[in-house]
Amino acid sequence: MPEQRKEIGIGLIGGGYMGKAHAVAFSAVGAVFDTALRPRLEVIAAGSPESAESYRRAFGFARAATDWQALVADPAVEAVVIASPQTTHRAIAEAAFAAGKPVFCEKPLGASIADAEAMVAAAEEAGLPNMIGFNYVRTPATRFVRDLLAEGAIGDVVWFRGEHTEDFLADAQAEANWRCRGRANGTMGDLAPHMINCARALMGEITTLSAQIETVHPTRPGADGPMQVDNDDQGQMMVRFANGASGHLFFSRVATGRKMGYAYEIHGTKGAIRFDQEDQNAIWLYRAEGPEATRGFTKILTGPAHPDYLPFCQGPGHGTGYQDQIIIEARDFLEAIATGAPVWPTFREGLAVARVIETAFASASDGRWHTVPQA
Amino acid sequence: MPEQRKEIGIGLIGGGYMGKAHAVAFSAVGAVFDTALRPRLEVIAAGSPESAESYRRAFGFARAATDWQALVADPAVEAVVIASPQTTHRAIAEAAFAAGKPVFCEKPLGASIADAEAMVAAAEEAGLPNMIGFNYVRTPATRFVRDLLAEGAIGDVVWFRGEHTEDFLADAQAEANWRCRGRANGTMGDLAPHMINCARALMGEITTLSAQIETVHPTRPGADGPMQVDNDDQGQMMVRFANGASGHLFFSRVATGRKMGYAYEIHGTKGAIRFDQEDQNAIWLYRAEGPEATRGFTKILTGPAHPDYLPFCQGPGHGTGYQDQIIIEARDFLEAIATGAPVWPTFREGLAVARVIETAFASASDGRWHTVPQA
Amino acid sequence: MPEQRKEIGIGLIGGGYMGKAHAVAFSAVGAVFDTALRPRLEVIAAGSPESAESYRRAFGFARAATDWQALVADPAVEAVVIASPQTTHRAIAEAAFAAGKPVFCEKPLGASIADAEAMVAAAEEAGLPNMIGFNYVRTPATRFVRDLLAEGAIGDVVWFRGEHTEDFLADAQAEANWRCRGRANGTMGDLAPHMINCARALMGEITTLSAQIETVHPTRPGADGPMQVDNDDQGQMMVRFANGASGHLFFSRVATGRKMGYAYEIHGTKGAIRFDQEDQNAIWLYRAEGPEATRGFTKILTGPAHPDYLPFCQGPGHGTGYQDQIIIEARDFLEAIATGAPVWPTFREGLAVARVIETAFASASDGRWHTVPQA
Amino acid sequence: MPEQRKEIGIGLIGGGYMGKAHAVAFSAVGAVFDTALRPRLEVIAAGSPESAESYRRAFGFARAATDWQALVADPAVEAVVIASPQTTHRAIAEAAFAAGKPVFCEKPLGASIADAEAMVAAAEEAGLPNMIGFNYVRTPATRFVRDLLAEGAIGDVVWFRGEHTEDFLADAQAEANWRCRGRANGTMGDLAPHMINCARALMGEITTLSAQIETVHPTRPGADGPMQVDNDDQGQMMVRFANGASGHLFFSRVATGRKMGYAYEIHGTKGAIRFDQEDQNAIWLYRAEGPEATRGFTKILTGPAHPDYLPFCQGPGHGTGYQDQIIIEARDFLEAIATGAPVWPTFREGLAVARVIETAFASASDGRWHTVPQA
Repeated sequence: MPEQRKEIGIGLIGGGYMGKAHAVAFSAVGAVFDTALRPRLEVIAAGSPESAESYRRAFGFARAATDWQALVADPAVEAVVIASPQTTHRAIAEAAFAAGKPVFCEKPLGASIADAEAMVAAAEEAGLPNMIGFNYVRTPATRFVRDLLAEGAIGDVVWFRGEHTEDFLADAQAEANWRCRGRANGTMGDLAPHMINCARALMGEITTLSAQIETVHPTRPGADGPMQVDNDDQGQMMVRFANGASGHLFFSRVATGRKMGYAYEIHGTKGAIRFDQEDQNAIWLYRAEGPEATRGFTKILTGPAHPDYLPFCQGPGHGTGYQDQIIIEARDFLEAIATGAPVWPTFREGLAVARVIETAFASASDGRWHTVPQA
Repeated sequence: MPEQRKEIGIGLIGGGYMGKAHAVAFSAVGAVFDTALRPRLEVIAAGSPESAESYRRAFGFARAATDWQALVADPAVEAVVIASPQTTHRAIAEAAFAAGKPVFCEKPLGASIADAEAMVAAAEEAGLPNMIGFNYVRTPATRFVRDLLAEGAIGDVVWFRGEHTEDFLADAQAEANWRCRGRANGTMGDLAPHMINCARALMGEITTLSAQIETVHPTRPGADGPMQVDNDDQGQMMVRFANGASGHLFFSRVATGRKMGYAYEIHGTKGAIRFDQEDQNAIWLYRAEGPEATRGFTKILTGPAHPDYLPFCQGPGHGTGYQDQIIIEARDFLEAIATGAPVWPTFREGLAVARVIETAFASASDGRWHTVPQA
Repeated sequence: MPEQRKEIGIGLIGGGYMGKAHAVAFSAVGAVFDTALRPRLEVIAAGSPESAESYRRAFGFARAATDWQALVADPAVEAVVIASPQTTHRAIAEAAFAAGKPVFCEKPLGASIADAEAMVAAAEEAGLPNMIGFNYVRTPATRFVRDLLAEGAIGDVVWFRGEHTEDFLADAQAEANWRCRGRANGTMGDLAPHMINCARALMGEITTLSAQIETVHPTRPGADGPMQVDNDDQGQMMVRFANGASGHLFFSRVATGRKMGYAYEIHGTKGAIRFDQEDQNAIWLYRAEGPEATRGFTKILTGPAHPDYLPFCQGPGHGTGYQDQIIIEARDFLEAIATGAPVWPTFREGLAVARVIETAFASASDGRWHTVPQA
Repeated sequence: MPEQRKEIGIGLIGGGYMGKAHAVAFSAVGAVFDTALRPRLEVIAAGSPESAESYRRAFGFARAATDWQALVADPAVEAVVIASPQTTHRAIAEAAFAAGKPVFCEKPLGASIADAEAMVAAAEEAGLPNMIGFNYVRTPATRFVRDLLAEGAIGDVVWFRGEHTEDFLADAQAEANWRCRGRANGTMGDLAPHMINCARALMGEITTLSAQIETVHPTRPGADGPMQVDNDDQGQMMVRFANGASGHLFFSRVATGRKMGYAYEIHGTKGAIRFDQEDQNAIWLYRAEGPEATRGFTKILTGPAHPDYLPFCQGPGHGTGYQDQIIIEARDFLEAIATGAPVWPTFREGLAVARVIETAFASASDGRWHTVPQA
């Protein structure tokens, strides 16, 4: 055992919602997981030097950068974490790969399919660790569900229903903001990627789909009178998976009452599974075995018997939370760097998800079933 | 107050699952609701005179009929209740109307659209009370949900998700039986009508839809080797309602773990509602009002404050059950007879539901959106 | 199979809350259970001849009696059901037994221990069927729990927690009514008997206890100014069972939010059970077996695999309700009469429950553990 | 805004279950809360220099100490966190206070009442920040419940039921370990403190109580044959609070199926609250207002509107977990140091809790109600 663990300098771009989450994650991950690489919070960049300095102080980075180019160029920065607006993802990632640095990028991969394709190409040409921030598949619960499916605990899967629903724009009178402009900020761009990633993680490829997408409230009050909303409020699709099962996906930012409605249910020939992120420490498992009189859905509380739980707590039922997912994500990224082995989900998964969304828009406009181009 | 309540002679055709339920209902309804008409269990008919006699004895009817024709013709039978196989519905109903007798018919209305159309025509030409057995819309919970929607408790509805899922054929090795033959016995014929009726009751007309329908297990073991299943195991449809909302409906008899999955959730601009028949005495209501810190879904237990609960029990939370729905149904039928006023759902509702199903099959075969012909 | 089932004439005293429930039950029970004896609603008596006549008409009895003495004496009345105020129970029961008629008596057995003792003596001297109305132990769920315990499904029981909590007097400003006068109408007299009966049914004898009983709101508004409440609002007791387990019982009529809080949880060495009457069609069962990763409480929905469910419905998860319990009760009483064999719970159970309550009051007044005299 | 935040050197004694939790917490807290003092992980001590070195490396401390004395004496250690066995608490705390250093001590305060008293005296004489590790009162949910009670959201409280139940020794054949020896390691010593602290936090002082405490499995298999268990498996007490309400507390380590059964329910004259740590992101609130038909328990998901949630996540319903409680705890300790103002719960709260437990043992041995000496 060497006396000190090897360190790695982290550069973080963005200090808002996800930026902070990553800052905390890289502060804590070394103690939680005893990672081979211990992160050193080296440089943070943000929209302006002033906000960067304010984030630096708050999160404990060594230096604030004047812009992301400076951060990427900084020799002490050995890995780059992108948590800035989608339109910036591609340029940053390309620059980082060009500088030979591994990249972790928040979802969605880029602001368009073209961006996503370019980013995958850059990552794969560089041959550098790359990862996309689908955090919700990383809970002990959902990782355990993957294990259950893999071991055939519920037999052959015949149905998958997934949703990602929230209600932050449910109020028709809520003032229009940046979320109401641009396809990438709509529900299909913002919420759908998580659940499409989840469906793929649990079920495999989506081969065909028929979708419907709509703007429920096309006009909202704005600062200077009524404002046009140019992206979607909710969308749904009927899907067919490569494994033969059919399914349904639903996404909404106007789902009144839903706060973190990342939820799925899966029917198999020998059992069923239900999960809802709003109660992220419980997996509901039904197994068609034993006497009828004692069958039912079992509410399993996460604990040390489930993936990645023990490092957070030795007691079952004590629970993990949102921030812990980001810590697990940081662990995976550090592992990818330390071992050089790709850690799922890589940029390619981000592209595959983007293709499903692209296909959904195409289907929604002609009302037919479409085949999803594989990534 | 007259010394005795007016009586009405009931003739019941069928003594199986639903037949028994109606026999019990007509035994109890007079005491539960103090109906204007007090039913007298007059004649029961069944597949054979022997089974009819056995049912007569078990349920307390005065006489057993040798066949349904005899029952319809019996002068003491003043109202006819049809709980025999679907293929018999039309002939019985036509004969009963011809004899001037009101008819209650179990769902589905007939074995085909043609049957359904003929039955509506017969009912309306006769000008006699006619009703179809959609019992699940009659719970205190769902009737209360209708009231909530009507009074705008959740604002304008933007989304409806409904399902009717059970698992009686989830086991791929379950032996094929009569349920595996004939479209009317498939999931779309057997389970879908209830939830389509519910969606219509709560949301109004379905105008367009895109559906997918499939036989998950096309072959099942039979008495003499593998047997072909010729009807559907599960089906789904994306829908648009006349009120502008979109939605999704799902039906399955292979939904492992689901026993009585008649469930819906409704998103409105000012609130949301959730209901699951497996916990039929609870309505979950979210209202977007008051401070954020105290918002959430409220689990309301049914009680005397809700429709048709009090006659069953003076205490809230004490609960009603399946049989009580059939008693409420009997009350409605007796009321239709007593007042001469049609009581929803009449045969016409059965036809409207059948049209949605017919449209779904058409859509499922060409993969496009179809307009539902209105009934 | 004889052509007609044997009939039995029922006389019912009381037409209020429980009176109506029994009237409906005796109307329906013959069709639900195909009982050996088919009840005939013969005579009803109530507080006045006028109300008796009104009940007669509503519930479908043949005749209304001028008083309970006339009912008991009526030769067509072959079995007596007592659903009148507690203070009347003893006299009616004694008269009925003297007339050689079986008696079903609503709980509590009498208005005092002396009443209860006299009623047990009368019943046993007469050697006639006698039964007390503890309906909640008759749900399919709780009967199934008894079976689970009997077969050792959760190993040796080490803890039982039970409660019967409602909130009908939770509002401190609710006007005082008859429920606020007299020990028998207090929480210990009115609600405690059900859960004590349940604890005994599931666990066996309570041997010792230490109790605390209190009037939370000693004064309430009355028609003519503040009124003194002379009975208890809530009570609790720590108990020891003869089987060695310890436990806790709690009763309250001021438990805001609780509507039908008849709930228990049981810890055994190999499993655990939870039940709450507010969700009466679900039993929660935990078994300490199989891998840790899949252990949890299983929510079992009642169905045909559970006791007394099938006669109400062939489909699992469709659910039974409050009224169905009373129908099961009627079935048991008819069976006791038909077979001559005592059907639990007999009057003696009512006395045993009364002794526990008596002991609780004694303990509450001296603050010590007391031994419960066995009935 | 100064360019750098002031740092403080942390010394941590113990690297096991709670030791690790604190190490992670002090790594993350500065980024989560932007605390005035930024912790620097200076020195860690453990049972042996080897384990200390191993913890140092894993958690990222600068140095490992040979023993706790060296840690306390280290000038770079400016605050001491005690997460070592209970028997060591007193000596460490006294030494730290003598050295003028603030102390955070894991619960229970000491191994005995005498220890606890001495520790409070040492802390108060030194006039230094001191805090005890009751982490469960720090969840956003329970902190919000305190606010609700304080603002009278449920009126006057009339009943409190609390439990802390787990099942780590539920299996009667589980091998005896250190947890089976010594009163401090029994259920009353180990689990009861958390819930007693909670009851006090929400309700105020417990004035009198009557308790029952027992060893359910007095003998367990040991390495060398059957071993005697000399401490308690479960305990319960009926209590009276200074605010007039009564209540019940239950503690068990043999509560099969319970993993983190820190749960309470509170009845007030105008509402009720329920909480269960196994679903730590939900508060159930009932308010006796508005029409009966829409009353029920509202399931409120924690979010930015609740105390201390926002720093962990901007989205409601995304949830916090066990580790987050310890981070909040670290924040409070740093705040106590930064401001010099005592932050609840101080050592005195630990003593008050110990007095309740001491009184419970006294009551359990004579079976009577006892008055709790106030701390």
